[in-house]
Amino acid sequence: MALNHNHSKICFVAVTCMLLFTASVKAQDIYAQYRQSWLKKAEDFKPKLTETVKQPIGLVKMEKDASAFQGWKAVKGNGIDSLYNQSFKKQSGVVADFGEHLTGYCTFTINTLRGTQDAPVRLKFTFGEVPAELSVPFDPYPGGLSRAWLQDEIITVTEMPATITIPRRLACRYVKIELLGASSYFDFHITKIQFKATTSVTTTPAGLAAGTSPMINDIDRVGLTTLKECMQTVYEDGPKRDRRLWIGDLYLESLANMYSFKNYDLTRRCFYLLAGLSGDDGILISNVFETPEPHAQVGNRLLDYCFLYNVALKEYVAATNDKQTGLELWPVAKKQLDIARKYAGADGMMDYVKAGKEWWVFFDWKDGLDKQGPLQGLTVYALNQTYQLAKLLGKENEVADIPALAKKLKDAAHKNLYDKKQGLFVSGTDKQISYGTQAWMILSGVASKAEAQKALKALPGVANAVHPGGPYMYHYYMAALIESGLKTEAKEALQNYWGDMVKKGADTFWEVYDPNDELKSPYNFYPVNSYCHAWSCTPVYFIRKYPDTFQN
Amino acid sequence: MALNHNHSKICFVAVTCMLLFTASVKAQDIYAQYRQSWLKKAEDFKPKLTETVKQPIGLVKMEKDASAFQGWKAVKGNGIDSLYNQSFKKQSGVVADFGEHLTGYCTFTINTLRGTQDAPVRLKFTFGEVPAELSVPFDPYPGGLSRAWLQDEIITVTEMPATITIPRRLACRYVKIELLGASSYFDFHITKIQFKATTSVTTTPAGLAAGTSPMINDIDRVGLTTLKECMQTVYEDGPKRDRRLWIGDLYLESLANMYSFKNYDLTRRCFYLLAGLSGDDGILISNVFETPEPHAQVGNRLLDYCFLYNVALKEYVAATNDKQTGLELWPVAKKQLDIARKYAGADGMMDYVKAGKEWWVFFDWKDGLDKQGPLQGLTVYALNQTYQLAKLLGKENEVADIPALAKKLKDAAHKNLYDKKQGLFVSGTDKQISYGTQAWMILSGVASKAEAQKALKALPGVANAVHPGGPYMYHYYMAALIESGLKTEAKEALQNYWGDMVKKGADTFWEVYDPNDELKSPYNFYPVNSYCHAWSCTPVYFIRKYPDTFQN
Repeated sequence: MALNHNHSKICFVAVTCMLLFTASVKAQDIYAQYRQSWLKKAEDFKPKLTETVKQPIGLVKMEKDASAFQGWKAVKGNGIDSLYNQSFKKQSGVVADFGEHLTGYCTFTINTLRGTQDAPVRLKFTFGEVPAELSVPFDPYPGGLSRAWLQDEIITVTEMPATITIPRRLACRYVKIELLGASSYFDFHITKIQFKATTSVTTTPAGLAAGTSPMINDIDRVGLTTLKECMQTVYEDGPKRDRRLWIGDLYLESLANMYSFKNYDLTRRCFYLLAGLSGDDGILISNVFETPEPHAQVGNRLLDYCFLYNVALKEYVAATNDKQTGLELWPVAKKQLDIARKYAGADGMMDYVKAGKEWWVFFDWKDGLDKQGPLQGLTVYALNQTYQLAKLLGKENEVADIPALAKKLKDAAHKNLYDKKQGLFVSGTDKQISYGTQAWMILSGVASKAEAQKALKALPGVANAVHPGGPYMYHYYMAALIESGLKTEAKEALQNYWGDMVKKGADTFWEVYDPNDELKSPYNFYPVNSYCHAWSCTPVYFIRKYPDTFQN
Repeated sequence: MALNHNHSKICFVAVTCMLLFTASVKAQDIYAQYRQSWLKKAEDFKPKLTETVKQPIGLVKMEKDASAFQGWKAVKGNGIDSLYNQSFKKQSGVVADFGEHLTGYCTFTINTLRGTQDAPVRLKFTFGEVPAELSVPFDPYPGGLSRAWLQDEIITVTEMPATITIPRRLACRYVKIELLGASSYFDFHITKIQFKATTSVTTTPAGLAAGTSPMINDIDRVGLTTLKECMQTVYEDGPKRDRRLWIGDLYLESLANMYSFKNYDLTRRCFYLLAGLSGDDGILISNVFETPEPHAQVGNRLLDYCFLYNVALKEYVAATNDKQTGLELWPVAKKQLDIARKYAGADGMMDYVKAGKEWWVFFDWKDGLDKQGPLQGLTVYALNQTYQLAKLLGKENEVADIPALAKKLKDAAHKNLYDKKQGLFVSGTDKQISYGTQAWMILSGVASKAEAQKALKALPGVANAVHPGGPYMYHYYMAALIESGLKTEAKEALQNYWGDMVKKGADTFWEVYDPNDELKSPYNFYPVNSYCHAWSCTPVYFIRKYPDTFQN
């Protein structure tokens, strides 16, 4: 995930207001006594990356094909030796295929074939996760995020033989190499293209149950690769972009990790890092960077992500029984509850309008999604989950007000948002019906099981229902289907949505996927989307946590 | 100098024929016993480069101006702090001016100004020796040499703060910086642009005589800078392009060095390097490279340059009395004489047609220049100079045939090429009249002093005379004026030609200069010309060797 232009205004409004909010709460750093030890813990749990050297499996040609994902497909070409054994001059534009998604560093060797190198050579390397990235022109660049995210690098080779490593860390399956300048007085070839692939994953999860369908096996495999690629020295959101730790991605990655690689040190590192880099007012910042030294994206506060930190921490402690970490970070979780207290009205409804003015309230990349329902549901859910965490840690007395607050919000939600006649939950002044609102009403327990099933079954028939904008919201919809006991529907949804990506050739799951609009981009240029994105890896979690539903 | 497309065919013909020639002379390496010690001597004399850190003196704007050199001028802008103290986002395209020509490595610092860097930044740096290089588009590239010679580099900055050194060695006065990609969520600035300038020059030559005209002082200053910039770990032809040791440039640089920096170790290094990398048949190769290990441009033989090696060696021994070097390299000089013996006909005329088929015969970047006269003259000159060298070394007995051969060629030249009626020397079947032919007939002594003066005075009135194509031939024309005792004309020519470059803003003298065609390029694209070129530095030699002519 990254900020986009639509949200920039909101974000900077949020910065301003949060400063006021901060000032009104406390002037000094409320975690001053903990911060250094949290950051040190984060450093202590920093994994050593595993490095594996990979070679291309062959050459491919990118061909236009209206039936292929985004209109481009990779067609198998010659073996890699046909690149290595011939002059590069007649091969400009060649695409090498590593056969899998890789994250790391690319190295190549270049040497003369005939004559003496009498001039530098200018080469352009373009690295792509999906075929379209190698095929559509990047300039003039229409995107809302930095043009520099696109992975094209221009290299001047002044001397041969040379073995050159492109300094930038890359994420790709394919690399295209173009010749931008050479001398006619000598000839040369490119050889030994290598990729030093990195991940902090060191374990291999068990296979799925015998008899699991090939499609579920495929989805699981692609999900595992997605998660593995995003597990670097933090849980990154995407190894191509944004290459950093966002709370929302951490939550879903840590869930998937519990049921696969079980690298709990990485989870702990991320919790400590976020805590150590939270605001002086105690409120978490939505995303943080590791280098050159750990730092947060100043001013980037995201309401839903603050709550999800608590949920993620509770899940972690419940899964590991690591109460020490839970206790050390309890002050952070406790503090995020203030957000609920601040916006909860006397009527038990969250003041989502005010919150929306003061915060970036995200939930989904979906224009027009009304946030009232999702926010009310998530708040109830986060309050209850945080109270569960308090109980695990023996800290209920410190948050004694929370069960009543949660119940008040829950009751108000049912009263105000449930449309009994339609059997659906509505959101906002326009009484919008959305997948997001149903999902959060169900996950929070506002909906009874019967109401949940009814709502979820009714949804597909609602003409104007706001569908999930992408895999992130789809996760919560999936979770709601499971929570409601709709096993068949859950399996179908998984196969329809993530299975569709697999059918379209995904090596890793995409940040953005709308089956009806493959060129969708929150950033106004689909090649800058991330095609290996943490928040899309959660089939791993569903398939492995609920074998009865998926592995049969 | 570099090969260009017009000459490539000739060059490759030459390669083929030279192999036959080689085979007929001797199959094995005739210098096998010397080669290693020559290369070791070359290494022993390799200079340690002096490094000086330079800062820009300010910003400039490149403006179109039909009256400026190549139509572009640099207009003084704000101080460099106006770049450093403000966001770079609104300054894309800014040009920093170092105020002088520099050769070396460029470093800059980049850091955030506001917000947190949430995306990489893509920058384009363009380094230029003259304003037009910063102003005209490079693509689509029409030039005959590698596009990669042009000094534009694209850099992805993934992390700030960063201090980044562009890996490629550069030659420039100006650097343009353009923003190709950034995030709208943070701001940044570029600071501390530095250039680590290198040269092997360590001395400061004496000033010119009091009373020397400002123009001559200026020409001398620009010539010294040109020479200094080209003096790296060899005498390079140009620090931007081709960045290597060519014999023709070495000859002129070593002359200028004798009268200025007096770095004789560098001269020796270059003689040894060329000897150590000559062909197995003993014939020199026109140009050599130092890295990754010393090597020659295989197949690139240039007839006139073989002869000029001998002339340069003789001048060096005469100036330094370093007979040891002379004696060690005498086998090389002696061997080059075979070229004269091979092409000298019974009538005393060089078979320039055959030589032109078998060799690259250069003399000048000038389409249509007939080479008969220049070749005949240079051959006589080289024979006599080599014999002078033999005498200095006590080796006359080894080349006892040379005086007679030189006289034979000289007499034949006068008989066949002097048009008494016109008072001019002619060349080729069309009896072409050129500056080149007059120059070489005079330098060789074919022309008497009276004939020389007459010819040189007549030249400007000859409508179809072939003028020098650039500074390299202009050097020989200047030398002929001086040899003929035409002091006033020599001073005028120097002031007209090199002075014109100074008036047009040259910081260093240009590889190519035609007062009537500033866009002239042997490579079909004038920005790829070198604008700091060794063979153009010889005013330093003339002004300082002949103070009576120039310093008054």
